[in-house]
Amino acid sequence: MKIIIVGATGTMGKHLVSVLEKDHEIIRVGSRSGDLQADITSPGSIENLFRQSGSFDALICTAGPSYVGPWKSMTDKEFRRGIDGKLMGQVNLVLIGQHHIHPKGSFTLIAGALTHEPVLNFASAAAANGAVEAFVRAAAIELGNGVRINAVSPTVLEDSPQYFPFFPGDIPVTMQRLEYGFRKSLFGANTGQIIRP
Amino acid sequence: MKIIIVGATGTMGKHLVSVLEKDHEIIRVGSRSGDLQADITSPGSIENLFRQSGSFDALICTAGPSYVGPWKSMTDKEFRRGIDGKLMGQVNLVLIGQHHIHPKGSFTLIAGALTHEPVLNFASAAAANGAVEAFVRAAAIELGNGVRINAVSPTVLEDSPQYFPFFPGDIPVTMQRLEYGFRKSLFGANTGQIIRP
Repeated sequence: MKIIIVGATGTMGKHLVSVLEKDHEIIRVGSRSGDLQADITSPGSIENLFRQSGSFDALICTAGPSYVGPWKSMTDKEFRRGIDGKLMGQVNLVLIGQHHIHPKGSFTLIAGALTHEPVLNFASAAAANGAVEAFVRAAAIELGNGVRINAVSPTVLEDSPQYFPFFPGDIPVTMQRLEYGFRKSLFGANTGQIIRP
Repeated sequence: MKIIIVGATGTMGKHLVSVLEKDHEIIRVGSRSGDLQADITSPGSIENLFRQSGSFDALICTAGPSYVGPWKSMTDKEFRRGIDGKLMGQVNLVLIGQHHIHPKGSFTLIAGALTHEPVLNFASAAAANGAVEAFVRAAAIELGNGVRINAVSPTVLEDSPQYFPFFPGDIPVTMQRLEYGFRKSLFGANTGQIIRP
């Protein structure tokens, strides 16, 4: 299977590359490193990515830039970091990628538990996650040729201890559970699902 | 109670004005008519709105511009109509309005059943709704001084028959049920809730 991993140089992406590359052709996409580079906040950059990658069987996105900071002084500008990044970046990967993906291919996006369990300082990411989850359900009834789409929605990850203080009481998700969430979307038959690893 | 109704000249807004104006001071806000005008896609226009309205007890938003159209040809530009309108318009009403609302005041935003029950052609609105719902939960734990925030999330409305063909099998929400949803947010004590009228 030819799998594009957007965010391949991040915490999640690196793990997924390491476990999937034994059995699959992986195209690692980063903002500044990897096999190919793309700025997912730019539709032109995404168009360019698919021109370089060619057609593919599956796309995984683990890249979700957003804003973390105090609420009282938050403005349109900061809030949009999550909207332009984690939300529209992933929406555009699908809107553009649908014209390059093979029949019966799959998209797997990244959402997060903040959709239903907000924590202080993460309102921008929470809104982006909620939008991604609703988008996945909407896209699942639109995509043609048997193409599927799901999102993986974890809470804080065991390999991101710098975020633990923001998520009191949340049991960190192991990298293996996260990986299995992506495997469910990649190799299962579901579509329009939010997978909580 | 001094209540600002954004979208006061639309289908929902007109009904809410008519039932609330007997007992409350209503400031009707429209894009081109009403007591005050505002373009909610512009943070500057929202700042100007609150300078003109002065402080208030409650803000209701029923304005949710978005994009309805075929999926295959949808691009960043069309998709953003819902993101800049229904999502960021309402987010900015809250981020800016929090500095003008009285203690124990309330915000009531408009979401929609598309968050969980997508229909064809409405992916932009579905994503905006999902984001608004997650934003409401996140804002509820951030807002100070006892200020509350909720969203009303209806399916198609009985007074919007032009949308019936898009929502097969959905029982239209009566204007009275919709009104009672807003009353629950305005006059109840809940916060962070998605009210399905």
